[in-house]
Amino acid sequence: MTANGESFTIPRTYKAVEYDKPGTISTKVVERQTPEPRTGEVLVRLTHSGVCHSDAAIMQNLWKGFQPTQPGHIGGHEGVGIVHKMGPGTEMSSIQVGNRVGIKWVASMCGSCPACIEGLESRCANGKKSGYTGPGTFQQYLTSPANYVTPIPDGLDSADAAPMLCAGITVYTGLKKTNAQPGQWVVITGAGGGLGHIATQLGSHGMALRIIGVDHGSKKDLVLESGAEAFVDITQFDDTSIVEEVKRITGGRGARAAVACTGNNRAYAQALAMLGLNGTLVCVGVPEGDAVLIPGSDPRSIIFRGLNITYTSVGNRRDAIEVLDFAKRGVVKSHSRVEKMEDLTKVFEEMSQGKLQGRVVLDLE
Amino acid sequence: MTANGESFTIPRTYKAVEYDKPGTISTKVVERQTPEPRTGEVLVRLTHSGVCHSDAAIMQNLWKGFQPTQPGHIGGHEGVGIVHKMGPGTEMSSIQVGNRVGIKWVASMCGSCPACIEGLESRCANGKKSGYTGPGTFQQYLTSPANYVTPIPDGLDSADAAPMLCAGITVYTGLKKTNAQPGQWVVITGAGGGLGHIATQLGSHGMALRIIGVDHGSKKDLVLESGAEAFVDITQFDDTSIVEEVKRITGGRGARAAVACTGNNRAYAQALAMLGLNGTLVCVGVPEGDAVLIPGSDPRSIIFRGLNITYTSVGNRRDAIEVLDFAKRGVVKSHSRVEKMEDLTKVFEEMSQGKLQGRVVLDLE
Amino acid sequence: MTANGESFTIPRTYKAVEYDKPGTISTKVVERQTPEPRTGEVLVRLTHSGVCHSDAAIMQNLWKGFQPTQPGHIGGHEGVGIVHKMGPGTEMSSIQVGNRVGIKWVASMCGSCPACIEGLESRCANGKKSGYTGPGTFQQYLTSPANYVTPIPDGLDSADAAPMLCAGITVYTGLKKTNAQPGQWVVITGAGGGLGHIATQLGSHGMALRIIGVDHGSKKDLVLESGAEAFVDITQFDDTSIVEEVKRITGGRGARAAVACTGNNRAYAQALAMLGLNGTLVCVGVPEGDAVLIPGSDPRSIIFRGLNITYTSVGNRRDAIEVLDFAKRGVVKSHSRVEKMEDLTKVFEEMSQGKLQGRVVLDLE
Amino acid sequence: MTANGESFTIPRTYKAVEYDKPGTISTKVVERQTPEPRTGEVLVRLTHSGVCHSDAAIMQNLWKGFQPTQPGHIGGHEGVGIVHKMGPGTEMSSIQVGNRVGIKWVASMCGSCPACIEGLESRCANGKKSGYTGPGTFQQYLTSPANYVTPIPDGLDSADAAPMLCAGITVYTGLKKTNAQPGQWVVITGAGGGLGHIATQLGSHGMALRIIGVDHGSKKDLVLESGAEAFVDITQFDDTSIVEEVKRITGGRGARAAVACTGNNRAYAQALAMLGLNGTLVCVGVPEGDAVLIPGSDPRSIIFRGLNITYTSVGNRRDAIEVLDFAKRGVVKSHSRVEKMEDLTKVFEEMSQGKLQGRVVLDLE
Repeated sequence: MTANGESFTIPRTYKAVEYDKPGTISTKVVERQTPEPRTGEVLVRLTHSGVCHSDAAIMQNLWKGFQPTQPGHIGGHEGVGIVHKMGPGTEMSSIQVGNRVGIKWVASMCGSCPACIEGLESRCANGKKSGYTGPGTFQQYLTSPANYVTPIPDGLDSADAAPMLCAGITVYTGLKKTNAQPGQWVVITGAGGGLGHIATQLGSHGMALRIIGVDHGSKKDLVLESGAEAFVDITQFDDTSIVEEVKRITGGRGARAAVACTGNNRAYAQALAMLGLNGTLVCVGVPEGDAVLIPGSDPRSIIFRGLNITYTSVGNRRDAIEVLDFAKRGVVKSHSRVEKMEDLTKVFEEMSQGKLQGRVVLDLE
Repeated sequence: MTANGESFTIPRTYKAVEYDKPGTISTKVVERQTPEPRTGEVLVRLTHSGVCHSDAAIMQNLWKGFQPTQPGHIGGHEGVGIVHKMGPGTEMSSIQVGNRVGIKWVASMCGSCPACIEGLESRCANGKKSGYTGPGTFQQYLTSPANYVTPIPDGLDSADAAPMLCAGITVYTGLKKTNAQPGQWVVITGAGGGLGHIATQLGSHGMALRIIGVDHGSKKDLVLESGAEAFVDITQFDDTSIVEEVKRITGGRGARAAVACTGNNRAYAQALAMLGLNGTLVCVGVPEGDAVLIPGSDPRSIIFRGLNITYTSVGNRRDAIEVLDFAKRGVVKSHSRVEKMEDLTKVFEEMSQGKLQGRVVLDLE
Repeated sequence: MTANGESFTIPRTYKAVEYDKPGTISTKVVERQTPEPRTGEVLVRLTHSGVCHSDAAIMQNLWKGFQPTQPGHIGGHEGVGIVHKMGPGTEMSSIQVGNRVGIKWVASMCGSCPACIEGLESRCANGKKSGYTGPGTFQQYLTSPANYVTPIPDGLDSADAAPMLCAGITVYTGLKKTNAQPGQWVVITGAGGGLGHIATQLGSHGMALRIIGVDHGSKKDLVLESGAEAFVDITQFDDTSIVEEVKRITGGRGARAAVACTGNNRAYAQALAMLGLNGTLVCVGVPEGDAVLIPGSDPRSIIFRGLNITYTSVGNRRDAIEVLDFAKRGVVKSHSRVEKMEDLTKVFEEMSQGKLQGRVVLDLE
Repeated sequence: MTANGESFTIPRTYKAVEYDKPGTISTKVVERQTPEPRTGEVLVRLTHSGVCHSDAAIMQNLWKGFQPTQPGHIGGHEGVGIVHKMGPGTEMSSIQVGNRVGIKWVASMCGSCPACIEGLESRCANGKKSGYTGPGTFQQYLTSPANYVTPIPDGLDSADAAPMLCAGITVYTGLKKTNAQPGQWVVITGAGGGLGHIATQLGSHGMALRIIGVDHGSKKDLVLESGAEAFVDITQFDDTSIVEEVKRITGGRGARAAVACTGNNRAYAQALAMLGLNGTLVCVGVPEGDAVLIPGSDPRSIIFRGLNITYTSVGNRRDAIEVLDFAKRGVVKSHSRVEKMEDLTKVFEEMSQGKLQGRVVLDLE
């Protein structure tokens, strides 16, 4: 029962989309039994879930050297819904039935391993990852620890909130790790993609950085509308001249930082080369296939050019709250379209063909 | 004339050691004309100069892709001596005749390029490097900008001060860039070498870090005497088991940071692998020969392992003053032996054979 | 039952020391009913508790403007003991029966208020404070949230661990907030007191700061043994000359920072005056009686002298783990004597007379 | 002669505005002999100078405890002009005849005292302050060290550049010292004044902070146009309710930081009270008259409320370059009107009556 007396009828079964043939692009809508929240958990009736490149990689087993995904797995890690039931032992939680909450990539944290203690809860040794090492958000019901769901601020649409819970947090922490000051030039590679266009908005409108968006010419309008001050069309330059173009834009200095939002290895190589003295490359997009060392990451180049290479930490609860506040204020809004659960396979196909602009959000009603 | 009326007789010629056959290990003592200090300069009578691996690399043209050294070049960039004469326009300088001062790798800075403005004066676009793009300290007299010589604190021997002016500053800024807190574990590779044993002392006694020294077994005593809490003998482990050994020492977590004081590419690969979550590799030693990318520096590893790679900035005047203060307090003391100018060739030969323990300082009297 | 099958017999009643006449110095040993751990809690059999100045202030109602303490209240917030029983819903906790754990000033945190989210859990809007807004550690049994007790590392005596859980954490976070670099001069006021001598050890041996200990001449030996490089006897100087003495010790510059470990208002005034340009005063000791503005804290002085004033955050779980690691390594050891529960009144009397050297730890066996 | 062959005719005398009766508001236009640039100096033909509250305070001897100003002193420290002549020993300078440059509050720095070495050149022990310890910019010609004039970027009007050289740098470094992140609430007191409206623009448009402007109701439009998200009219609240209003605006938390741009002591007291947990008060405006301690700056309040108090560093050359870059990009533009040299007395009178909106710039042509 909610604070104002509302209560929810919970059906015995519900609809979920599972990966029926992992290794390929294939999903199937199935019926599942509604679970009971265990001690410390809440039951969330999901209404929306973003669709992320990592979901595609997990479904298709594209991260070499990792455990293969099992048939029947349910992916997704950008979920928004309403708490319908509280499990035992949640009396003291600040969450109540009826609250709108988000489910993130990090599904749970132990709170006591070294990573958690240091605030790097996304690296918790014992936690689960939604849609990867645990069930995900491509379904109507999911249980989650009461202390780990993220409250969604009033005035923010659920469909707009969903992509913030992974893409938003990921690029926000990536932008923070650039150590770039307001007014400095930051390159975003893949600036028109699902991660990139959010990074471009957060970087420009949210953090007052001067963004150089790098992507295919077809994404130019989206990138400039997202707040980039300059756009570099990768189809118009080779590996050398694209670096010269960034030097030109930045008055000869080179970029202060680059946030690599695409997992493309060539984009990584270019991004490192675009940096000026004491520049920072933040690795965000996860390349698929064999590991490729970043050209330029030899000690002599790092020392003589004065380079820094770092990673996105994928964010903790504080980062989640901050990025949702930006979204609520309208500083950042995912360019997304809403699709039905039944169409998830089609969405993944478009994604694998590089045709997606912005983000897709599944309607789970 | 000095503050207390002292003045110096300056000879018409003096002794210098030049690289007579660059590309090989060969030096020759020659007579040179004593120069006059120009506007803003002082004339320094050098008494000591440290000998650094970079000197050997410059003499032998070992940094691929850089300008070859010319015959007659004078190397050296860790000089200490007495100011014997002030040039015109130095009236307002805080330096006076009779002061003991140091000459660093960075011989001069313009003070107005972007690098200088940001405090990265070692990357000054217009400055000279002692013993590289300008004459060095393997000689008895040298002119230098009055505003860029470093005052040597009283109570610190000149032979002890010399190695601080490059090795000391370099590893000090390297240790600072680890972002390691007091009490955290930091690996020093090449911990018994010219850079490494100074890094070990500064890191342990000076900055309260817990040092794991990695080097050949023959350096064990020097490394432990320098303050390392643990020593790892590279001859006793392979690439996999040496990482396990560091994990064991650090209670399973892996090192918080590694400062790569040797230019050995294999040592770089091991150092990156020794890091725990959110660990930082600081590149200090410059590898010779072809550029070799650091194994593990692919985006997926950087992201999933949570790694940071950075460089030493080689320090500015503030770093120089701080490291000389540590030396004056006895916190750090180069393990060095003094050799004559005539024996520089022999010193470089020992260095190329990996036989040197600690640092050599030339006596220029 | 513990991991190795051990289990504990829990008595129906146990011994506690209560404040029987708050507003005065008076304590009484009483029998209490042993509580049952509630959902998410553990029952700890305390064996040791440190005694802190704050306990005395709470007992005597010395913090003006705060709620008066009620008769029967049990104080203490530096407890160490063994987990004897796990409450319901603690199955997934990393804590087990038989573990040795610590109880801190912060007894619980909600984990979701703004302060908790920002890592300032000591300022949690909903949490309890041991021995202040909740029952304390001057007793043999206490319940505590399983996720908030602090594991005590093996090899560290319980009597040595207890003072670390408040005094240790408090001064450690205070030292961190100085932003002083290794090798810089930091003043500790009250350097021979319960907080001060721990700050002196942590600052010097643990963090490689150069400590100037300021206190009564009678504390000189303790302060110098604790690692201070210089001692300033407050009985030998007036407000002006004591500042001159610190200027002299620091080579004319003034201290980089001061950690005010005593709540004495005159010591605060002197500490601010001892700072050099861009120096930082960290407020740690809580003055009793009426609020006294710190002389020198007017905007013109702050601007023209370049001063910073800040506070200790009292630490989060990460700070607790770090400071216990320093203690385990022997870097810091409270100068303490062990007293019986029955003698707590006598201890508070000594404390109020300023006669205590170091810390007192109650034996609760 | 300039790079393109241009040269300037330098008159024997020129016009200056002096303080003829220090201690009162009075200025007089006089003729002065044009000086020759000494070694290392340039001669600048000033065309514009901002007028600052500090000028008024220096003229009227309002900073208690400081040296009184002498009759004939020339004030001003926000000057822009053209280099007309280079002194001897400036051959290697990057500055050339014909360059447009700025003169700042810090007229010169020694480059080797501890403050300079630490980048706090505004606190240089040996440097001069324009219009205070040295001649200022209320005149047509001034000599300045070649290495210390600030290049004015092309495309920025001189009248717009002038106020950036003191007001701009001062509030920019003040905003930096808040440590506020993009998206956090920062209070600006005196938000419609000469400093405040620039702080409001830089904070909002330049650094993506959410600004609460506090000032008289008459300044409301200017403050909101400058980018404040909320305006608090000091005439509508008492000391208690104004704090409640800021709490309301910030969702109950209190401000993350406050930049006190007015020297009013009551505004300082209110600003400290407006801070939330771990908030930071940055002291910028210098109060006149007797020193008044900031209410709330007692240790117990600082500790229990979790407060930080700091100062603006007035900026170094890097800050100057950064703030001029913001101005060039149009992010910040002083709300100013141009007045003649003859009208400086009238300007100071308006200032002393609190009637000035924004900044006045003197036309020195």
